Amino acid sequence: MTVTAADVQRARAAVEGIARHTPILPSATLSDHAGVDVVLKAESLQRTGAFKVRGALAKLAALGDGCSAGVVLGSAGNHAQGTAWAAAQLGVPCVVYMPADSSIQKAEGAADLGADVRLEGDTVEDAVAAARAHAQEHGLAFVHPFDDPDIVAGQGTLGLELLEDLPNLSTVLVPVGGGGLCSGIAVAVKAARPDVRIVGVQVESCAAFPESLRTRSPVTATTVAPTLADGIAVKRPGELTLALMAEHVDELVVVPEDDVAEAMVLLLEKAKLVVEGAGAVGAAALLGRQVVPSPRDRDGGSICVVLSGGNVDAGTLALVARRHETEVGRRVVLFTRLPDRPGSLARLLDCVAQTGANLLDVDHVREGVDLHVRETAIQLVLETRGSEHADAVQRAIASAGYAARVVR
Amino acid sequence: MTVTAADVQRARAAVEGIARHTPILPSATLSDHAGVDVVLKAESLQRTGAFKVRGALAKLAALGDGCSAGVVLGSAGNHAQGTAWAAAQLGVPCVVYMPADSSIQKAEGAADLGADVRLEGDTVEDAVAAARAHAQEHGLAFVHPFDDPDIVAGQGTLGLELLEDLPNLSTVLVPVGGGGLCSGIAVAVKAARPDVRIVGVQVESCAAFPESLRTRSPVTATTVAPTLADGIAVKRPGELTLALMAEHVDELVVVPEDDVAEAMVLLLEKAKLVVEGAGAVGAAALLGRQVVPSPRDRDGGSICVVLSGGNVDAGTLALVARRHETEVGRRVVLFTRLPDRPGSLARLLDCVAQTGANLLDVDHVREGVDLHVRETAIQLVLETRGSEHADAVQRAIASAGYAARVVR
Repeated sequence: MTVTAADVQRARAAVEGIARHTPILPSATLSDHAGVDVVLKAESLQRTGAFKVRGALAKLAALGDGCSAGVVLGSAGNHAQGTAWAAAQLGVPCVVYMPADSSIQKAEGAADLGADVRLEGDTVEDAVAAARAHAQEHGLAFVHPFDDPDIVAGQGTLGLELLEDLPNLSTVLVPVGGGGLCSGIAVAVKAARPDVRIVGVQVESCAAFPESLRTRSPVTATTVAPTLADGIAVKRPGELTLALMAEHVDELVVVPEDDVAEAMVLLLEKAKLVVEGAGAVGAAALLGRQVVPSPRDRDGGSICVVLSGGNVDAGTLALVARRHETEVGRRVVLFTRLPDRPGSLARLLDCVAQTGANLLDVDHVREGVDLHVRETAIQLVLETRGSEHADAVQRAIASAGYAARVVR
Repeated sequence: MTVTAADVQRARAAVEGIARHTPILPSATLSDHAGVDVVLKAESLQRTGAFKVRGALAKLAALGDGCSAGVVLGSAGNHAQGTAWAAAQLGVPCVVYMPADSSIQKAEGAADLGADVRLEGDTVEDAVAAARAHAQEHGLAFVHPFDDPDIVAGQGTLGLELLEDLPNLSTVLVPVGGGGLCSGIAVAVKAARPDVRIVGVQVESCAAFPESLRTRSPVTATTVAPTLADGIAVKRPGELTLALMAEHVDELVVVPEDDVAEAMVLLLEKAKLVVEGAGAVGAAALLGRQVVPSPRDRDGGSICVVLSGGNVDAGTLALVARRHETEVGRRVVLFTRLPDRPGSLARLLDCVAQTGANLLDVDHVREGVDLHVRETAIQLVLETRGSEHADAVQRAIASAGYAARVVR
């Protein structure tokens, strides 16, 4: 069982005209950072917000009449949305199993796309098992998220678009969870342009591929931490995808969790794109220099960063943006002591106001602090124009006679 | 003084190949909402994050040798970035005056693009006056943000792209500040397709055009409130842009401030695009039904919403996203009373935990509340899966014997 460039070409007939040919966008910021031309494949702008519709359309086409009774899958994420949407386009019934504690938003998302959503089990693995059992019992087609030659061939159609749109393509960075997208792109690109470097990117919190590639057999990740890049938090590579990755992928790198958040903010602020954590790991790898430009990249080539998805809710975006504000010193928490007399706080706040910092929160801290009698402790949350301004605010407060320290 | 379609065609020669031909993206969410086909012109993905580079390139080309010594402008926003970038592309020196309290980020942004940035005055008007004086004194060309035929013709090149990319175009929604973008698009589109409806959109907080169009002379907005759509908070229309708008624009609508925030979140969550407040007013007008589909729109047409810019910092995005979470009930503040005994809070939180809500903050409220002796008041901030879940949490707390109310 393998996947060839001819399979990807066949898959394209099923994908084209239904999935979107997503745009390539230049990135001045990443190009400056890397010192070579860097472009973004904005697959986050794909139908349902992720690449998954490509594989789903290819799979449904391959099943043909074999799926007219319906398809079944288990997922709480992009695979559910993508397959539900693809099935709806082709008029194929679709049953989606999700863990019982899935967000209403996600369950409603798949239901709105026409899927018959069933909440079952505690984990995604439980939901997948329930989906398999349902498929077997009712004679329906089970759709695996990645370890399936038709799915891989479908995801590979993204690689064909890169070949057409980027004549100078020299390196592709692809997020890796189960490996379906990366192996599909690698098959498509290497067949036409064996000189193009393919780099897979995983996140530290769940990275089973490095060890699996070393041992040439799927290894289950032992340390799995909560991650912003939940879309690629796949504990165990597929048999097929591992074999394809081993054959076609040049490098596999792992990025730290914190860099994912910073990459998301960079893409928000500079590229004006909403990219989920899993979709931003390629940008994180460039920022953290886990991937460095090759001689080919430097010699008029282009590094293409595949932004595989954009499904992240407003709450998570708020957390990521807030964290960044603290990181760059635009949000500062200051702790200081004041005489417990009328007007003390007013004077402190006046001093802060004169620095141009914006007061977000003020708290009296009375417990657990070593205070003199007639003294009170104050914690201020301030918005500043950046770390230099934050330092200036602290100096101004100090020179007004308050010993303030930044709380981390 | 006017602008014709021939001027826009001429401007295109200066704009093409330097500015980006930005993509058209379908929007299933807005199409469903409006009941007709709605597409997005993602001008937020333009160089420097806004349409302004188009007008600047056209202006610099028209100046020709007249600007080889340099150009001068006053702005704290997209006009500064766009002109600085365009000038750098053509090797023209550029002086930018900004108000003294501009964010370091914005000042550095223009400086990074090669501009000579000078901080002067308290308001944008002061900065513009300083720029005019500098231009006169040094014999340099002053570049107005909108009331200039070359600037208008440059912005109009966006309209030419709409004509090419959207054969079924029936309505265009365009944000209106000074009116440069809207009048440019209107000139370009109406010349080729007089049947296409052009709708200008302003924000309630600063809307000078309705009265100015009525009286056919520029009126200064009297009520100017702080707005998320600061990019279009222009107090007074230009003479040229007002005349062009009066001649070519079919409707001018005004959207409420709160709808701008919701439109930004919809574009973030559904379209995966970062759009600044000023850029999102067209989407807000569709959501709030200030603009309703015309018979032509319903008869196989397409409504195109111009997303004019994406320059918004992470802090503002965090505020907008956070506000939305509260709006849709995913963030709830609950107030309740407890017996002041060991274990009371633990029991309450256990009850909350069983509902699946996530605890973000807990506060003892001791002052200003009418409490019995041996009673304490508690305020909880919870993250829920939506308003139905929030109601369920409140019911669960009530049935456990705590009288909880939602604090607004």
